Amino acid sequence: MTETKTAGKGLAGVIALDTAICDIDGVNGVLTYAGYGIADLASNCTFEEVAFLLWNGRLPDEKELDALSLRLTSERKLPPMVIETLRLMPEDADPMAALRTGISILSLFDGEADVMTPEANMRKAIRLTARIPVMIAAIDRIRQGLDLVAPLDHGSTAYNFLYMLSGEHPGEAAERTFDACLVLHAEHGLNASTFTGRVIGATLSDIYSAIAGAVGALKGPLHGGANIRVMEMLSDIDRSGADPVEYIDSLLNRKERVMGFGHRVYKTLDPRATILRGMVDALSAERGTRKWYDMSVKIVETMKDRKGLYANVDFFSASVYATLHISTDLFTPIFAMARVTGWSAHLLEQWKENRLIRPRAAYTGPSDRKTNRS
Amino acid sequence: MTETKTAGKGLAGVIALDTAICDIDGVNGVLTYAGYGIADLASNCTFEEVAFLLWNGRLPDEKELDALSLRLTSERKLPPMVIETLRLMPEDADPMAALRTGISILSLFDGEADVMTPEANMRKAIRLTARIPVMIAAIDRIRQGLDLVAPLDHGSTAYNFLYMLSGEHPGEAAERTFDACLVLHAEHGLNASTFTGRVIGATLSDIYSAIAGAVGALKGPLHGGANIRVMEMLSDIDRSGADPVEYIDSLLNRKERVMGFGHRVYKTLDPRATILRGMVDALSAERGTRKWYDMSVKIVETMKDRKGLYANVDFFSASVYATLHISTDLFTPIFAMARVTGWSAHLLEQWKENRLIRPRAAYTGPSDRKTNRS
Repeated sequence: MTETKTAGKGLAGVIALDTAICDIDGVNGVLTYAGYGIADLASNCTFEEVAFLLWNGRLPDEKELDALSLRLTSERKLPPMVIETLRLMPEDADPMAALRTGISILSLFDGEADVMTPEANMRKAIRLTARIPVMIAAIDRIRQGLDLVAPLDHGSTAYNFLYMLSGEHPGEAAERTFDACLVLHAEHGLNASTFTGRVIGATLSDIYSAIAGAVGALKGPLHGGANIRVMEMLSDIDRSGADPVEYIDSLLNRKERVMGFGHRVYKTLDPRATILRGMVDALSAERGTRKWYDMSVKIVETMKDRKGLYANVDFFSASVYATLHISTDLFTPIFAMARVTGWSAHLLEQWKENRLIRPRAAYTGPSDRKTNRS
Repeated sequence: MTETKTAGKGLAGVIALDTAICDIDGVNGVLTYAGYGIADLASNCTFEEVAFLLWNGRLPDEKELDALSLRLTSERKLPPMVIETLRLMPEDADPMAALRTGISILSLFDGEADVMTPEANMRKAIRLTARIPVMIAAIDRIRQGLDLVAPLDHGSTAYNFLYMLSGEHPGEAAERTFDACLVLHAEHGLNASTFTGRVIGATLSDIYSAIAGAVGALKGPLHGGANIRVMEMLSDIDRSGADPVEYIDSLLNRKERVMGFGHRVYKTLDPRATILRGMVDALSAERGTRKWYDMSVKIVETMKDRKGLYANVDFFSASVYATLHISTDLFTPIFAMARVTGWSAHLLEQWKENRLIRPRAAYTGPSDRKTNRS
C-alpha cells in the first residue's frame, strides 16, 4: 500500500506527474515549450508550428507543417447541429458556457470520439484546434444577429479567425500579433484547466469530455479572465477621460489592486509580456489607433516607477484585443482557442502511460451517528 | 515558499483536502455519509433525505424534508432548449455525452448560474438534482422516437424517474429498490469525478461547469461503467443459454476477469452490495421475473466458493436495473443522477474555504533548444 502523505492546501508544491511539454522557471522568468524559449518561438514560429511542437515534442519540417496546415484548414467546418444549437441560445449567453456546450456537441458528430488510439486522439486534437476558432466566431456573430462568415479553405488559424470574426481580411501586423498571442497562450504547465483535463482524461474518458471540462475550469475567475479585468480598467480610464498616470496613482493610494502586474508564478519578468509590447506598437500603427497602446505604456511606466512591478502577459494581450476591436467577453474563449493545443498535448502525454489521478481526502466530520429508525 | 514534494503516481495516497462529507474505511468495509453508516441510510432514509444530509451535514426534520421535496418537484421542468437540443442529436449519441451537453445548456437558462453565494449555489444544486433525472428520461425516450412523459408534480425522485422513463407507475418494491440504488451511489469520497468537480470549482467557475466536467470524468471506463460490464456478462450468459456456474468456471479457467467482484477500495465486503442483494429479491417478486436475480445469486455463490471473493455494489445494481428493463447505456447516467448530490456537496464544501487546486509537474523534456531562425 502507498504511504499516505498530507499535502499542502490546494496541492501547492506537490509534484503530481512528469511532463516533457513545458517548463516554467518563475524565479528567472523563463518559459520553454519542449525546450524552446517562449521568446524564440513567439518571434520565429507560427501557432501551427507550435501546435506541432507541443503535440510531437519537436518542430515540424516543411512537409509536416504543410500537412498539418492542410488538415487544420480542411477540418474547419462545424457540424450543422453546432450552429443550430448556438442559434437557440439566449443572446446574452456567456461565451464560455456557449463554447463548453459547443465542444460537448462536437463529440456527437465525431465517429472517433471514443476511439482511444494515439492516432485517433491526435486527429481529434487537430479537429478541436481547427473548429474551436470557427465556433467562437460563430458565437460572436450569431449573438449580434450577423450572418456567419464561412471559414476560408486556406490561411493561418490567426488570419482565419480574425476574418471570420469581423468579415474583413486582417492586415499583416494584425495576423502576426494575434498569431503571437496564440503562441504565448498555447501552453503553461499544469495549471488548473490543464490539470482538470488530465484528471478527466485519466479515467480514459474521451478528449471532448476532457476539453469541455478544461474550458469549464478556465471560465473560473481565479484562472482565465485576468486580461478581462485589465480591459475593464483600460475601458474605465477611456470612458472617464482620466489621465492614466493619475488613475493608477489614485488606485495605489486607495491600496487597490492594479490588474495585469506581477504574476503568481513569475517573480520578476513575465517573459511573454516583453514580446507582446513591441507587437502592439506595430499593430497600433497598422490599425491607425494608438489609444490603447499609449494608455498601456503610460500605465506600465507608472507601475515600474511607483512599485517596481512589471506587466504580465494579460496586461498587453488586453491592448492587442482591444486594438483589434474584439469584445472583452471573448478574451477567455480566445485563451481556450490557443490553449486547446496545450490541453490536448497533455492528454496525449497522459494517455501514453495512463494512471487514474485520484488523491484522497482526510475525513474531519462526525462519526458513529445512527438514524435509530429500524 | 511551499516545499516541493514528489507524489506517488496518480497522486495515490496523497491527501489533497479535508472533508466532512464521507468516510471510507476499505479495510473494514465501512462507508459513512456524514457519520451515518451506509446500511443504516439505505435501509431507513430516502434519497431526498440523504441529499439533504450530504448538503447540510445533518438529516432534515419533517418540515425541512417537505420543503426540499417541494423544491425538487417544482424544479423538474427543463428549459425548452434542452429538449430541442436533445431532438437534434443523432439517435446513437452516447447518453453520457448527451447528458454532459444538456447540463452545459442548463446553465444558459439559470439566471443565477454565475452567482457564487452559498444560497444561490444550494439552489442550483437542488435544480440540478431535480432536472438531471428528467433529462435522462428525455434522452432515452427521444432516441426511441417515443413521446416525452412530463414529470409529475409530486412523488420521489426515484418514483418520478421510473415513471418518466417507462410511462408506467412503478410498484412499491421498484421505487424502494431504485431509491436505495440512488442512496448507495450518492457519494463515495474523492473519486476522479468528484475531484474533477472540485478542481474546476476551485477556480471559482460555476456549478454547471463543475458538474459537466464531473460527468465527463464519470464517463471514463476506469471510473463509471463497471456495472455496464457486469450487465454485458449477464446478457452474454442469458443470450448463450449457458449455465451461470459453468460460465464463471470457464472464465476463471481462462484466467479472465469476472466483473463486479472485489473493489479497489474495499478489501473485504463492499457494504453496499449486501443491502442491494436483499432488495433485488423483493423487486424480482414484484416484477414477476427472477431471471437476473437467480443468475446473480449463482454467480455470487460460485465466486465465493472458487475465489473467496465478494460481489461489489456494481454487481447487484446491474441486476436491479436489468429487472427494471433499463437500457445498459443508462447505467452510468443513473450513477450521475445519484452522484450529483455528492458532487454538489463537495462543491459547496470547496467554496466554503476555497483555494485553487494546482499541483506541479516535473519537467523531464529537452532543454536549451533554439530555432536559430532570427
